Amino acid sequence: MPKVYELLEPGPGVLVTTASNGRPNIMTMSWHTIMEFERPLVGCVISNRNYSFELLKTTNECVINIPTVEIAEKVVGCGNTSGANINKFERFGLTPNPAEQVGAPLIAECFANLECRVADTSMVSKYCFFVLEVIKAWIDSKVEKPCTIHHLGSGNFMVAGDKIKLRSKMK
Amino acid sequence: MPKVYELLEPGPGVLVTTASNGRPNIMTMSWHTIMEFERPLVGCVISNRNYSFELLKTTNECVINIPTVEIAEKVVGCGNTSGANINKFERFGLTPNPAEQVGAPLIAECFANLECRVADTSMVSKYCFFVLEVIKAWIDSKVEKPCTIHHLGSGNFMVAGDKIKLRSKMK
Repeated sequence: MPKVYELLEPGPGVLVTTASNGRPNIMTMSWHTIMEFERPLVGCVISNRNYSFELLKTTNECVINIPTVEIAEKVVGCGNTSGANINKFERFGLTPNPAEQVGAPLIAECFANLECRVADTSMVSKYCFFVLEVIKAWIDSKVEKPCTIHHLGSGNFMVAGDKIKLRSKMK
Repeated sequence: MPKVYELLEPGPGVLVTTASNGRPNIMTMSWHTIMEFERPLVGCVISNRNYSFELLKTTNECVINIPTVEIAEKVVGCGNTSGANINKFERFGLTPNPAEQVGAPLIAECFANLECRVADTSMVSKYCFFVLEVIKAWIDSKVEKPCTIHHLGSGNFMVAGDKIKLRSKMK
């Protein structure tokens, strides 16, 4: 069996922030999908091997921060380390800004930040799969062509390429 | 609220094939995520407004076919039409090949084909969210740099761009 995740994974790699007792954390995540257009729902896998798993379960809040290729090294750094041992904001020179609706911070260096509340935990025990509702979204309109990065497995990333427009009735 | 799905959606757009009573169908899908590495699981939203929804519910089988930019027009065509009215293989000049493990066909024009069985339906009634297990995967090794397409919303697609390699412990 070839590595199926290498074929289907490459949605944008994102940074998920959580916070508990004033201590923020960051984790790198690639396994997510939109589930509904309005009241936007995002389903995502946050493994129980991650320090963020307990923070998310306890607080029911997080921020999905979408980085661009300029900070790809920091994204991978966040994925290679554990918040159990280090403060990733300090280690990787990322800036936590206060969110509006949740206790977890926004990462200033990301072009988009989605404040989320946990909406459904029925698949958490079996798959570590959380359904999040995006309750507030921030986009930096100064970033004209955000060049997202998409994990292909084993540290290989695809960088967002050209855009094409096709005649579509799709939303 | 900006369009959250435009930010998070762009995993590769795929073509899902189903079949019932010898009649195959195709639908275009963008909302999917890997959920487990081994016994590969894929979670995906297949709306109950799609003709494929009933076919999948009835047969519990499908194929996820991964197209490249060369057939982007056909991918959008499959998304803009309904299998209730037309045979999409004929309409869009796509070739159905027999699968090994499931009744749904492989699309010959796609560089990868993942034969799937439905593994969990507990989120189908609420979110139309199916958990699929990939039981057989085919990859055309002659396609060296498959250039996938990633829906950004409203018919805008990002085409897979350059690849970069970063030092990562991630799988």
